[in-house]
Amino acid sequence: MTPLSATACAIARPRTDRGQGDRIALSAATSHGSHLRTEDVRVWLEERRQANDFRVERIPFDALDQWRFKPGSGNLGHRSGRFFTIEGLHVEERDGPFGDGPRREWQQPVIRQPEAGILGILCKEFDGVLHFLMQAKMEPGNPNLVQLSPTVQATRSNYTRAHGGADVKLIEHFFQPERVIADVLQSEQGSWFFRKVNRNMIVETVDEIEADDDFRWLTLGQIAALLHDDLTVNMNARSVLSCLPFPDCTPGALFSDTQLLSWFTGERSRRDVRAHRIPLSSVCGWKQGPESVEHEEGRYFRAVAVAVQAGNRERIQWTQPLFEAIGVGVVAFLLRDFGGIPHVLVHARADGGFLDTVELAPTVQCTPRNYAHLSTVDQPPFLGIVLNASPSRIRYEAVHSEEGGRFLNASSRYLVVDTNDTETPLDPPPGYAWASLAQLTELTRHGHYLNVEARTLLACLNALSTQPKGGA
Amino acid sequence: MTPLSATACAIARPRTDRGQGDRIALSAATSHGSHLRTEDVRVWLEERRQANDFRVERIPFDALDQWRFKPGSGNLGHRSGRFFTIEGLHVEERDGPFGDGPRREWQQPVIRQPEAGILGILCKEFDGVLHFLMQAKMEPGNPNLVQLSPTVQATRSNYTRAHGGADVKLIEHFFQPERVIADVLQSEQGSWFFRKVNRNMIVETVDEIEADDDFRWLTLGQIAALLHDDLTVNMNARSVLSCLPFPDCTPGALFSDTQLLSWFTGERSRRDVRAHRIPLSSVCGWKQGPESVEHEEGRYFRAVAVAVQAGNRERIQWTQPLFEAIGVGVVAFLLRDFGGIPHVLVHARADGGFLDTVELAPTVQCTPRNYAHLSTVDQPPFLGIVLNASPSRIRYEAVHSEEGGRFLNASSRYLVVDTNDTETPLDPPPGYAWASLAQLTELTRHGHYLNVEARTLLACLNALSTQPKGGA
Repeated sequence: MTPLSATACAIARPRTDRGQGDRIALSAATSHGSHLRTEDVRVWLEERRQANDFRVERIPFDALDQWRFKPGSGNLGHRSGRFFTIEGLHVEERDGPFGDGPRREWQQPVIRQPEAGILGILCKEFDGVLHFLMQAKMEPGNPNLVQLSPTVQATRSNYTRAHGGADVKLIEHFFQPERVIADVLQSEQGSWFFRKVNRNMIVETVDEIEADDDFRWLTLGQIAALLHDDLTVNMNARSVLSCLPFPDCTPGALFSDTQLLSWFTGERSRRDVRAHRIPLSSVCGWKQGPESVEHEEGRYFRAVAVAVQAGNRERIQWTQPLFEAIGVGVVAFLLRDFGGIPHVLVHARADGGFLDTVELAPTVQCTPRNYAHLSTVDQPPFLGIVLNASPSRIRYEAVHSEEGGRFLNASSRYLVVDTNDTETPLDPPPGYAWASLAQLTELTRHGHYLNVEARTLLACLNALSTQPKGGA
Repeated sequence: MTPLSATACAIARPRTDRGQGDRIALSAATSHGSHLRTEDVRVWLEERRQANDFRVERIPFDALDQWRFKPGSGNLGHRSGRFFTIEGLHVEERDGPFGDGPRREWQQPVIRQPEAGILGILCKEFDGVLHFLMQAKMEPGNPNLVQLSPTVQATRSNYTRAHGGADVKLIEHFFQPERVIADVLQSEQGSWFFRKVNRNMIVETVDEIEADDDFRWLTLGQIAALLHDDLTVNMNARSVLSCLPFPDCTPGALFSDTQLLSWFTGERSRRDVRAHRIPLSSVCGWKQGPESVEHEEGRYFRAVAVAVQAGNRERIQWTQPLFEAIGVGVVAFLLRDFGGIPHVLVHARADGGFLDTVELAPTVQCTPRNYAHLSTVDQPPFLGIVLNASPSRIRYEAVHSEEGGRFLNASSRYLVVDTNDTETPLDPPPGYAWASLAQLTELTRHGHYLNVEARTLLACLNALSTQPKGGA
């Protein structure tokens, strides 16, 4: 592959490109782009919404085209065998010092998509500043349909033979990348997906790029400003942006990297999570109707079907299933400075859909409605602190939606909340630890450390630290 | 947990302990230990062999105590449900640019052991030099029974309730480690185990340690000398030693770290490996007899049973199944200098038992006997170069055995062979890449990058670079 073609330079080079960090920092500090004002991005997004005749309608399962519940298993899948399936999942989880403590066990529907797709952002220097090519992309599950997405977001089915529509625009830049800034397989929602990963890529080019009206070049400073808007930067874009190798400008952290990794290894070792797929038709606690598969108590989510019409997507029209959220989520990091260095309280979270037991999650990640039937002591830890925080302590707040190609109206309030020693002692409860932003940024070079919600908040925190002043 | 207890030091510290690298290098350069000469380690190991009445006998499956083939699945397991099981595995693998190329499919027996155990080495300074506490440990599958092992090697079943024998000596130092040098979940043989990992730990102590005659404190220089002996340092010890954070004294590498990770991500993305467990009784191509489960053509390995008697292990006597190797393996890195910096040719290897598709393996890793029936062009790449290398090009060679608690007589010749531009061009074939030793060392901080054979060779290479002069 091209990035490792070395015949022209058979001598050693530095293992780290130190200039790259400075160029990323410069782009983050640049709130005026070379191509359009940040305010005009909002106008352009609205124009893209209007220019296309997007319609998303709920339909009963039996109106799905090419999708069917398979006889026997009852799993919902595409006739081609590609894209994704909705199946059942059985999870057993044990906690305690050696995975021999209290036991939980449950079943649920889950989305299985074993192929890794590509989420790629192309970037290029204009006027000496890195700009990132963002797409105005319609996804049927987004409450406002069109949001800012990576340059490309394509399942393997999209860019190979399974898809009947047009080729994925600009995908070729990610097959033979000239200069790679980030390239890592990252996980997605472990409570709704079974071990789903996507390849998160940031690639620099010096080529002339022909990009149509669905694309715009933006600085990181502009994207940072837009991350303060509700429902504007989609989940895939946030995930890819979280993998940017921002330089560490801080002199240290509360714990050394080795200590932090050791704590994480301990968390992954002590939890015993065993998840295996089961037929959708056998899932206990859920009921299937003509228009949805839903939890018997109405909690968590439901599987539904939609028909989509769109003018600028790869295919003109299609039908597909989606998971519809029940209630709005709350996703928050508690933030403290130690020695002047910002740290967040990460949670070692075990989800049935994680490939490897535990990933690092935000301090709080839940849908409060799912806990409404429980007493105060059974509410998720730290949720009260986040919900009751006075405005002066809220350092960041915006509503973002999740993966609009698979989830319908799945939105969460993302927050970063200042905290103090009374609420959050230096020695947090088991399963929680303080990590600096630089430590989390470095961990995004590798997969299965930060979950997708933590990556969203990391992208927002990096946006926060660049303190965009609007740029309009 | 203690390592993150921060109340006494609520200020930031450096993320990396730079002095630690120097202390490791000093121990590696010290070939005379404070406690005994390296030559006397060999004598002591032989004494331990003689001092205990170790006997390992093959028995038929129906002479196993507490182990049985379960009705229905035919899986072989312990009545307690703990330790491990022998089950069936079905693997489908597709290669090609997008996992849509040539397809392989097979079934095999596999060992499943879902609990992560602890492999831990305790170290301590004597006379200003770090010494590592190694155990003379009997494992029934080792050809010579007793080898040098980590301070502790314990399955979760060993150190919790499932085991009827004595407690694991010194295990308490790994529950509440004072000072962690390495702590990472690492994989084991992906062709024989289903997603097995162990927690590899190196922990420093300042306590007085009471260690009986099964234990000795050795410098890294002494262990390096012993790594040149056949069948002396066991697999678990080699794996843990490979995680030592040796400092990078080289100015760079052929490819930047980002390029190397990007290549690896590409390899993991393009391979499509789907493995799922099946009942042992349904495995095609294998036949079950009263004393073994073996391949119909006599290849790969066979499952057998043994009775063990030992004086110094946690239990006095027991029976258990083992996988017995067919033939001796060849495991080798091809080595080249680029810009004066040593690099090895790593192979992105897909095994059915890997948790995450692909791990980095040595250039050659195979049992030649399994390929004897194939033509020259179908032999594993680079095997001929390794087997035909003249003695002057062999930089390292020793026979090591694998996991003696699960495998019987599973030995491989481990080699490091100098190569040149004619044999191994700068642009290697797909699936191979050049990585510096420092890059590989850094990757051992994280799991699922280097497979256990690559980690053994990395430990040997680090031993090689310290050039031990014997120390006798």
